[in-house]
Amino acid sequence: MDLSTLSLGQYTFVQNAFSFGLAVMAAATLFLWFSRSHVAPAYRMAITISGLVTAIAAYHYLQIMLSWEAAFSAVGGTLEVTGYPFNQAYRYVDWLLTVPLLLVELILVMRLSKSETVSKSVTLGGAAALMIVLGYPGEVSEDAGTRFTFWVLSMIPFIYIVYQLVVGLKGSISKQPENVRGLINGAATLVVVSWLFYPLVYLFPLIGLTGGAAVTAVEVGYTIADIVAKAVFGILILTIAMRKSEAEGN
Amino acid sequence: MDLSTLSLGQYTFVQNAFSFGLAVMAAATLFLWFSRSHVAPAYRMAITISGLVTAIAAYHYLQIMLSWEAAFSAVGGTLEVTGYPFNQAYRYVDWLLTVPLLLVELILVMRLSKSETVSKSVTLGGAAALMIVLGYPGEVSEDAGTRFTFWVLSMIPFIYIVYQLVVGLKGSISKQPENVRGLINGAATLVVVSWLFYPLVYLFPLIGLTGGAAVTAVEVGYTIADIVAKAVFGILILTIAMRKSEAEGN
Amino acid sequence: MDLSTLSLGQYTFVQNAFSFGLAVMAAATLFLWFSRSHVAPAYRMAITISGLVTAIAAYHYLQIMLSWEAAFSAVGGTLEVTGYPFNQAYRYVDWLLTVPLLLVELILVMRLSKSETVSKSVTLGGAAALMIVLGYPGEVSEDAGTRFTFWVLSMIPFIYIVYQLVVGLKGSISKQPENVRGLINGAATLVVVSWLFYPLVYLFPLIGLTGGAAVTAVEVGYTIADIVAKAVFGILILTIAMRKSEAEGN
Amino acid sequence: MDLSTLSLGQYTFVQNAFSFGLAVMAAATLFLWFSRSHVAPAYRMAITISGLVTAIAAYHYLQIMLSWEAAFSAVGGTLEVTGYPFNQAYRYVDWLLTVPLLLVELILVMRLSKSETVSKSVTLGGAAALMIVLGYPGEVSEDAGTRFTFWVLSMIPFIYIVYQLVVGLKGSISKQPENVRGLINGAATLVVVSWLFYPLVYLFPLIGLTGGAAVTAVEVGYTIADIVAKAVFGILILTIAMRKSEAEGN
Amino acid sequence: MDLSTLSLGQYTFVQNAFSFGLAVMAAATLFLWFSRSHVAPAYRMAITISGLVTAIAAYHYLQIMLSWEAAFSAVGGTLEVTGYPFNQAYRYVDWLLTVPLLLVELILVMRLSKSETVSKSVTLGGAAALMIVLGYPGEVSEDAGTRFTFWVLSMIPFIYIVYQLVVGLKGSISKQPENVRGLINGAATLVVVSWLFYPLVYLFPLIGLTGGAAVTAVEVGYTIADIVAKAVFGILILTIAMRKSEAEGN
Ligand SMILES: CC1=C(/C=C/C(C)=C/C=C/C(C)=C/C=O)C(C)(C)CCC1
Ligand SMILES: CC1=C(/C=C/C(C)=C/C=C/C(C)=C/C=O)C(C)(C)CCC1
Ligand SMILES: CC1=C(/C=C/C(C)=C/C=C/C(C)=C/C=O)C(C)(C)CCC1
Ligand SMILES: CC1=C(/C=C/C(C)=C/C=C/C(C)=C/C=O)C(C)(C)CCC1
Ligand SMILES: CC1=C(/C=C/C(C)=C/C=C/C(C)=C/C=O)C(C)(C)CCC1
Ligand code: NA
Ligand code: NA
Ligand code: NA
Ligand code: NA
Ligand code: NA
Ligand code: NA
Ligand code: NA
Ligand code: NA
Ligand code: NA
Ligand code: NA
Repeated sequence: MDLSTLSLGQYTFVQNAFSFGLAVMAAATLFLWFSRSHVAPAYRMAITISGLVTAIAAYHYLQIMLSWEAAFSAVGGTLEVTGYPFNQAYRYVDWLLTVPLLLVELILVMRLSKSETVSKSVTLGGAAALMIVLGYPGEVSEDAGTRFTFWVLSMIPFIYIVYQLVVGLKGSISKQPENVRGLINGAATLVVVSWLFYPLVYLFPLIGLTGGAAVTAVEVGYTIADIVAKAVFGILILTIAMRKSEAEGN
Repeated sequence: MDLSTLSLGQYTFVQNAFSFGLAVMAAATLFLWFSRSHVAPAYRMAITISGLVTAIAAYHYLQIMLSWEAAFSAVGGTLEVTGYPFNQAYRYVDWLLTVPLLLVELILVMRLSKSETVSKSVTLGGAAALMIVLGYPGEVSEDAGTRFTFWVLSMIPFIYIVYQLVVGLKGSISKQPENVRGLINGAATLVVVSWLFYPLVYLFPLIGLTGGAAVTAVEVGYTIADIVAKAVFGILILTIAMRKSEAEGN
Repeated sequence: MDLSTLSLGQYTFVQNAFSFGLAVMAAATLFLWFSRSHVAPAYRMAITISGLVTAIAAYHYLQIMLSWEAAFSAVGGTLEVTGYPFNQAYRYVDWLLTVPLLLVELILVMRLSKSETVSKSVTLGGAAALMIVLGYPGEVSEDAGTRFTFWVLSMIPFIYIVYQLVVGLKGSISKQPENVRGLINGAATLVVVSWLFYPLVYLFPLIGLTGGAAVTAVEVGYTIADIVAKAVFGILILTIAMRKSEAEGN
Repeated sequence: MDLSTLSLGQYTFVQNAFSFGLAVMAAATLFLWFSRSHVAPAYRMAITISGLVTAIAAYHYLQIMLSWEAAFSAVGGTLEVTGYPFNQAYRYVDWLLTVPLLLVELILVMRLSKSETVSKSVTLGGAAALMIVLGYPGEVSEDAGTRFTFWVLSMIPFIYIVYQLVVGLKGSISKQPENVRGLINGAATLVVVSWLFYPLVYLFPLIGLTGGAAVTAVEVGYTIADIVAKAVFGILILTIAMRKSEAEGN
Repeated sequence: MDLSTLSLGQYTFVQNAFSFGLAVMAAATLFLWFSRSHVAPAYRMAITISGLVTAIAAYHYLQIMLSWEAAFSAVGGTLEVTGYPFNQAYRYVDWLLTVPLLLVELILVMRLSKSETVSKSVTLGGAAALMIVLGYPGEVSEDAGTRFTFWVLSMIPFIYIVYQLVVGLKGSISKQPENVRGLINGAATLVVVSWLFYPLVYLFPLIGLTGGAAVTAVEVGYTIADIVAKAVFGILILTIAMRKSEAEGN
C-alpha cells in the first residue's frame, strides 16, 4: 500500500472513519450485553457472542487508528509519512477471530440439535479461517498478479460458506416460528450482501483505483462492511432472539 | 477555523468546558445505567440508549479534548499553535451516531405500536443523519457563503424533524397517563429549544464574531447544547419512565 | 499562584496528597456502589449519587495530579518549573458538578415529599453553583484585594446554604426514625464543619502564607476537605440509609 | 536471545501473534465470566478461575507486546533494535500465577471431597511453581548447556504433574456422569498435549534453530500453546460444567 | 535509598516483582468480588472490603512500577539512573489506607455487636494510621540512627495492635462455630506472622545490607509481605465467610 500520495483530506477522512468504527463497535457491544436480560436463557449465549464480536472489533479499530495516526504527520497543515508502518494485519487478525464467531452466533440463534450445532460450527468456522488466511498474502502484496491469485484462492472457501448459509438458512427457516421468518430471511440476506462487500473492496486496487484514492476506498469500504456485518447484524440477531423468546413464552 | 488569535484565557476556558463536558457525560451515563432497575422492563431499552448516547458523547469529548490540547502549547504562560490540526469532525461523527439514537429513545419512551416505532425510527433517524451530513461541509469551510449555503440545506431536514416531533408528541400526549403529560410536554420543549441552539451556534461566525472569540463561542456553545440535549434530556426521559412505571403498577 | 518557590519536599508531599485523594475517591466509589444492594430501593438513588460524586472527584484528582506532574521537573533531585501551567480550574469544575449533587443526595436521603425534593434541589443547587462561580475569579487572581472581594461575594450563597441546611435538617430530624437521629445530626454537623473548611483554606494566602507554603497548604487543605465532604460524608449517608432500611423493615 | 537478526517480516508476525493472544485472552475472559450464570453454583468458582487465568494472561500479553514494540524500531521500512530489553520474564511471571490456577480449576470441576481438593491443590500447585522456577534460568541463558540442564530439572516436576493428572483424571472419570466422560477425557488429553508443547518449544534453540527464526518460533510457539492451554481449555471446562449442571438438574 | 549501585539483574528482578504484585492484587480483587454472591449477606461487606484492599494495592503497585521504570534506563544492556526520583511514599500512602481497612475487615467477619464493631474499628484503625505515619520519616532517611528511632516509635502502636488482635481473636474464637475455629486461628497467625515481616524488612539496611542488595531486599520483601497480608489473607477471610454462611444455613 502506497501511503505517500494521500492528501490531508483523505487522511482525515479515514481517521474519522476509524474513530466512527471504534465508537459504533463499542456502543454496539454495550447495547448487546445490556440486552442479554431481554431474551430467553437459551439465546443468551448468542447475544454474548454478538457483543464479543463487536468488542474484539472495537479493540482492533483502536489499534488500527493508533497505527494510522503514527504512520502520518499532519503538523502544519501538510501531510507527510513518518515511516512508521501502517499495520494492516490487524484487520486480518480481527477477522480470523470474529468471522468464525459470527458464524457460531448465527448457528446458535437457530437452536439446532447439539450435534448439528457442533459440526456446523467446526466446518463453517474452519472454512472461514482458511478464507482469511488465504486472503492475507494478497492484501499486503504490491503486485497485482499476487493480489488476484490469492483473491481467487480465498473465494473458494468463501463461496462454500455463502452457499451453506443460503441453503442451510433456507432449510431452517421453515422450522422457525412464523413471526421471525421475515427477520431470519433478512439476516441471511444481510450476511450474504455484507460479506460480498469484502471481496469487492479487496479488488478496488485491481480495477483502476491507485494511490491515496485506493487506500481511502479500501479502508473506508472495509469499515462500512464491518459495521454492517458485525453491529447491524448483531442487532438483527438480538431482534430475532427477542421475538423468539416472546413466541416461546419467556 | 483560525486558532492563532486565541488568548491563553480563551484556550483554558474551552479546555475546561471540554473536561466539564466529558465529566458530565460520563457521570450521566453511569447514573442512567444504574437507574435501569428503577423502571419497568418495557422502558429499560430507552434508558439503555439514553446512557449509550452520553457514553458515545463522553468518548468524543475525550477525543476533542486531546485534539484541542495537542493543537496548542501553553508552556511558559503564552499560547502558541503547534500546527497539529484541531479535529472538529469528532463533533459531527458524534452527532451522526447520537442524534438518531436520541430520536429512537424519544420514540421508545412513548411506547407506540411496533410498526409505528420502526417507521418513525427510520424516517426521523434518516432525516437526522442527512441534517448532520449536510452541515459538515459548511462547518469546516472558511468561506462565509459556503457556511451559509450548507446551513440552509441542513435546515430542511431539521425543520422536518422539529415539526414531526412537535406534532407527533402533541398527538401522543393525549394518550399518555395524566401524571406524565407535563413531563412529556417539558421533554418536547427541551428538545426543540436545545436543538434550535445548534443552528444558532453555527451562525456565530457569520454574525460578526471573529478569531478567538468565534472559536470560543462555537465550542462552548455546542458543549452547553450537548449537555442539555443529551444529559439533561436523558434524565428527563428517565423521570418519565419512572413515573409511567409507577402508574402502570411496576 | 507562584509555583517557583516550592521545595522538592513540598512538591512530593502535594503529589502524594493528590494520589491519596484519587485512591480514596475511587475506593469510596466502588464501596458505595457495591453497597447499593444493602439499602431499601427508596434509598438507592441517594447511594448511586454518593458514588457518582466520588467518581467525578476521582476523575478530577487524576487530572489535577497529571497537571501537577507536568508543571514540575524533579529530575536530578532538584525541583524546577517546566512552564506547563498547573490548571487549578479542575477543582472548580469538580465543585460545580459535585456540590449540587451532594445537596441533592442529602435531600434524597431525607425522603421528603416529591415537590419539596424538587424545589429544595433547585434552590440549594442553584445557590451552590453561584457560590462556586463567584469564588473562581478570586482563586486565580494574584491580587489580594480581588481574592478578598470574591471571597465576600461567594460567602453570601454559602451562608444561605449553610443556614438552610442547619434549619432544614433540624426541622426534618424530628420526623426521622429515632435510631438515625444521632446519625443525621452527625451528618449535618459534618457538612457544616467540612464546608466551612473551604472558605478558610481559600483565605490562607491572605493571612500571611506565601510561596511554596501557601500552595502546599491550599492544595493539601482542599484535598482533606474534599475527602471529608465527599467520601466520609458518602459513607455516613450510606449508614443512615442502611439504618432506615432496617427500621422500615427491608 | 539475539534479537538483532530478526527480519521486519518476523518482527511483524510476532507482534501480530502477541496482539492476537491479547485479544483471544480478553475475549475468553469476558465469555467465561458472562457464562457463570449458565452453570450450577457449585461450578461457578471453577469458571471464575478459568476467566481469571485468561485475564492474567491478557495483562501479560499486553506487557509482552509493549516490551516487544519498545525493543525494535521499524521506522522507514527497516528493522533495528533500540537497545530496550525485551523482557521475557513476563511469560514466567504469568505461568507462576496461572499454571497453579489451571490445576485448581481442573480439580474444582471434578468436585472431589473438600480435603482431597485442598491436598491436590497444594501438591500439584507447588510442583507447578517449582517447574516454572526451574525453567527460567535456562530460558534467559545464552548457553546451550545451561538451557539443557534446567530443562532436565524442570522436567521432573513436569512429569510428576502430568502423571498425576493422567492417573487422577482416569480414576475420577469412572465416578463422573456418563454424558461428560468423553469431555473429561478430552480435557485430560488437551492438558497433556498442550502442556507437552512448552518443553518442546523451549528446546527449539537447541535443535538447530538460530537467530530470528529461533526467536519467532519460540514466541509464536508459546503463544499458540497458551491459547490452547488457557482459552480453549477454559471453554472445555465451561462445557463440562454446563453438562454436569444439566445432569444434576440445575 | 541509593539506587546507583543496582545491577541490571537486580533492577529487572524488582520490576518483575512489582508486575507480579500488580497482577496478584488485581486478580485477587476480581476473585473476591466475584465471590460475594457465595457468602451470606451479613458477610458481604467484609468481602467487598477485602477486594477494596487489594484494588487499592493494585493501583499503588502500578504507580510504584511506573515510578521504578522512570528512575532507570536499561537501554543498551547497561543500567543507569535517569535522575527521576523513585517515589517510595506510594507504599506508605497505600498502607495508610489499607491497614485500617484490613483491620475493619477482620472485625467485620467476627460479627461482633454494633458498638464493639465501631469502637474496635476506631481504636485499631487509629493505631494503625499512627504506626504508618511514624514509620515514614525513617524509611526515607539515609541516616541509620533516624531509621532506628522511627522504627522504635512505630513499634509501639504495632505491638498494641498485634496484642489486641491476638487477645481479641483468641477471645472471640470460643464464640465461633466449630468448623471455622481452625481457620480463624490460622487467620490470626497469618496476620501476626505477615505483619511481623514489615518491621523486619524495614531493618534490612540496618543489619548490613547495602546498595543494590538492600534496595532489592526491601522492595521484594515488602511485596511478598503485601501479597500475604492482603491477597492470601483476603482469600482466607472469604473461606471463613463461606464456611460460616454454610453453618448458619445460607
Ligand atoms: C473472499 C475474500 C475475502 C473475504 C473476506 C470476508 C468475507 C470477510 C468477512 C469479514 C467479516 C464478516 C467480518 C465481520 O466480522 C478477503 C479476505 C477480503 C480476501 C479476498 C477474497
Ligand atoms: C440545523 C443545522 C445543524 C443542526 C444540528 C443539530 C440539530 C444537532 C443536534 C445535535 C444533538 C441533539 C446532539 C445531541 O445528541 C448543524 C449540523 C449545526 C448545521 C447547521 C444547520
Ligand atoms: C464560601 C467560599 C467557597 C466555598 C466553597 C465550598 C463550600 C466548597 C465545597 C465543596 C465541596 C463540598 C466539595 C465536595 O464535593 C470558595 C469557592 C472556596 C470560595 C471562597 C468562598
Ligand atoms: C517442563 C518445562 C517447562 C514447562 C512449562 C509448562 C508446562 C508450562 C505450562 C504453561 C501453561 C499451562 C500455561 C497456561 O496457563 C518450561 C518452563 C518451559 C521449561 C522447560 C521444561
Ligand atoms: C512496625 C513498623 C512498621 C510496620 C508496618 C506494618 C505492620 C505494615 C503492614 C502493612 C500491611 C498489613 C499492609 C497490607 O495491607 C513500619 C511502617 C514498616 C515501620 C517500621 C516499624
Ligand atoms: Na502522527
Ligand atoms: Na506536515
Ligand atoms: Na499542548
Ligand atoms: Na508558549
Ligand atoms: Na514532570
Ligand atoms: Na530538576
Ligand atoms: Na518501537
Ligand atoms: Na528502521
Ligand atoms: Na526507564
Ligand atoms: Na543504559
